[in-house]
Amino acid sequence: MTEIEKKPAGLSTSSLETDDQKKNASINFIVSDYNFEKFMMMFILGTTGDAMDVKMNVFFTFWGLFNLKKDAKPKVGNVPYRGIPMPYKGMATRMFKKRLKKFGIEDLWGMLRDAVESGNLKLYPCQMTMDLMGIKREELLDFVEDPVGAASFLEMSEGGRIVSL
Amino acid sequence: MTEIEKKPAGLSTSSLETDDQKKNASINFIVSDYNFEKFMMMFILGTTGDAMDVKMNVFFTFWGLFNLKKDAKPKVGNVPYRGIPMPYKGMATRMFKKRLKKFGIEDLWGMLRDAVESGNLKLYPCQMTMDLMGIKREELLDFVEDPVGAASFLEMSEGGRIVSL
Amino acid sequence: MTEIEKKPAGLSTSSLETDDQKKNASINFIVSDYNFEKFMMMFILGTTGDAMDVKMNVFFTFWGLFNLKKDAKPKVGNVPYRGIPMPYKGMATRMFKKRLKKFGIEDLWGMLRDAVESGNLKLYPCQMTMDLMGIKREELLDFVEDPVGAASFLEMSEGGRIVSL
Repeated sequence: MTEIEKKPAGLSTSSLETDDQKKNASINFIVSDYNFEKFMMMFILGTTGDAMDVKMNVFFTFWGLFNLKKDAKPKVGNVPYRGIPMPYKGMATRMFKKRLKKFGIEDLWGMLRDAVESGNLKLYPCQMTMDLMGIKREELLDFVEDPVGAASFLEMSEGGRIVSL
Repeated sequence: MTEIEKKPAGLSTSSLETDDQKKNASINFIVSDYNFEKFMMMFILGTTGDAMDVKMNVFFTFWGLFNLKKDAKPKVGNVPYRGIPMPYKGMATRMFKKRLKKFGIEDLWGMLRDAVESGNLKLYPCQMTMDLMGIKREELLDFVEDPVGAASFLEMSEGGRIVSL
Repeated sequence: MTEIEKKPAGLSTSSLETDDQKKNASINFIVSDYNFEKFMMMFILGTTGDAMDVKMNVFFTFWGLFNLKKDAKPKVGNVPYRGIPMPYKGMATRMFKKRLKKFGIEDLWGMLRDAVESGNLKLYPCQMTMDLMGIKREELLDFVEDPVGAASFLEMSEGGRIVSL
């Protein structure tokens, strides 16, 4: 982790290189958690939006960045309902994955890559999180964009909606 | 759980039947957790918005769907502050409910039904969650709308705001 | 906690005094959790937005209100990733704070105050939460605005974006 320009915080990282394509995004998601539920919300909205030709940016910050690692395996974070017979998070995750297959949803990262390659979905790692956690570009999936800071995120979401999942 | 149309994920369920009324909604909430805090945020914004004649849709997905079950009893999910003398989630929930009575807030589901019946608030169960968790329409409160998928949600929120609580 | 006007819930508190300045806010954040992650998201977006001259309101409700107390010390809420060698939340919090210093981010509340004093950022305590939890105005930081209710929040966010962090 190197020492970089100081304050204002969000401006300290590769910002201001926003292009027109980004500005046109209709929805700008923020993912800050690393669990199966939030990953799936991003996945379903991202792939569905792609099928509907909606332009979307997703900004992965804090624990959310781990969803973009090559070895990502988000697990169910909460099992809040007594009525559901699933005592363990790992078990619950496997059960959901098995059931999702019936919907034709199996290769999660492959489907995500398709949505990215169609040009509708862009996945942005948070630069500051990478620096804070010592995560390198090569640890991330190859179809994510270059890391951006908070200033870039605010700029690219101008005129669009912002949704923190 | 029956096998239904495959990919794209969000399009697999009863989508595309969006009518004009839905398109006019000013705020489109997403509720994905099942706990007292998030339920109350939805409740306060929903009933307050109704009083102000704001059109609102709420989309209940993942654990959030359990808020719409006839036997729903969301409990406090977090008690993060040492300064508060409430060791147990059930106790904290009861304490909040008792204090809410002083604000005239007692029959939570009755007040929610009123906001729905006024036509300002619409509560949508997520179709995929119902299929994934094996929850049937008759287990849900009678004043919720028919289930919709992610594509419907994206369509009905066009032109409005999206807020994931 | 005094008994105040009854229903509709959000209208029961000091609402409707929205002025033009508030209406112009581009982003209206909701913070309902009390932990380091959500505090930092608000902090980074708030101070970065200030540097970019973006008008922002932040509404602190439920546990989120504790971020505004004079003795606030939000701690890391989740350590979801096995790969990270930080067994304890307090330890993780200290580690992040130490690393943030390298970005020039040390005096968190001082920097927040600067953004407030520049006129771009306004921090609103939720009136109902203060009543529910018995928290008094004098327990809160001196640079926060007067408490508002849900109706005020909905009014002041009209025309702007709403983001629940």
